[in-house]
Amino acid sequence: MQTKKKTPEFYMRAALAQARKAAALDETPIGCVIVKDGQIIARGYNRRNTDGSTLAHAELTAIRKACKRTGDWRLEGCTMYVTLEPCQMCAGALVQARMDAVVIGARNPKAGCAGSVLNLLQNPDFNHQVAITDGVLEEECRLLLQQFFRGLRERHKQMRSQTDQR
Amino acid sequence: MQTKKKTPEFYMRAALAQARKAAALDETPIGCVIVKDGQIIARGYNRRNTDGSTLAHAELTAIRKACKRTGDWRLEGCTMYVTLEPCQMCAGALVQARMDAVVIGARNPKAGCAGSVLNLLQNPDFNHQVAITDGVLEEECRLLLQQFFRGLRERHKQMRSQTDQR
Repeated sequence: MQTKKKTPEFYMRAALAQARKAAALDETPIGCVIVKDGQIIARGYNRRNTDGSTLAHAELTAIRKACKRTGDWRLEGCTMYVTLEPCQMCAGALVQARMDAVVIGARNPKAGCAGSVLNLLQNPDFNHQVAITDGVLEEECRLLLQQFFRGLRERHKQMRSQTDQR
Repeated sequence: MQTKKKTPEFYMRAALAQARKAAALDETPIGCVIVKDGQIIARGYNRRNTDGSTLAHAELTAIRKACKRTGDWRLEGCTMYVTLEPCQMCAGALVQARMDAVVIGARNPKAGCAGSVLNLLQNPDFNHQVAITDGVLEEECRLLLQQFFRGLRERHKQMRSQTDQR
């Protein structure tokens, strides 16, 4: 029996499922998965406030798990699917892990380091470059973030108006 | 009784002690400490091969521990003392942690991201910049690395000559 080849959208949907776990914890909804030979070998979602750790970004969590699973700090042959363009720390980790490729949902014009602010993934001065694909389920990834920030603003507004009424 | 103010060399010596722990494990000897209000609150040394993890760099280990100790992903008011200029991942983590400053022993011309290849710590497009001091116990930090790599080359040479004799 031949296994049906999965589409990039299939893996990005798995990353979106991770991002929703972050949203459920009131964390900025960012999620990712790492894929090797067609299989998801690690998952991660943002838990920065919940864990109180700088390192609790979705991408670093998934890289840590993938290393544990493969027993190697080199994640050659792996691709990361992530709902938002990685920051400078996570883009740096992708290069350090020698990951083959990253597939991005939404761009992050203010802080993204896969081409928006900087392109850390394809700097010819480093000893490794990571291939980039973007725009996979872009609208779904962007809407999830927009809904989260809208909800946050509304709650802040409500809190302010309750304070004013006292 | 007044506590005597510690010098940058004092903290760099503590970072060097961490680097020697890495050397004892046959890991590239890099170590660091994080200091807040004059106290060392976290230590780290390179364990990348030992742990088989991309994230097992000295700096990320110390940041993880400092977050655990303070309960906060923001390491404001903290300074890192590190024996070698940080890579792109660790420099990115210093910005993400909103660390005040980093004090560097030796520069890393091939991969350093605190000014050698790139300066990720002081990019005006990011929402935080990290102050940089370098050259503290530079020779001691550099010599430790040079000794390690010389030892590595000699062992490779011996292994090759043993193979040739067979």
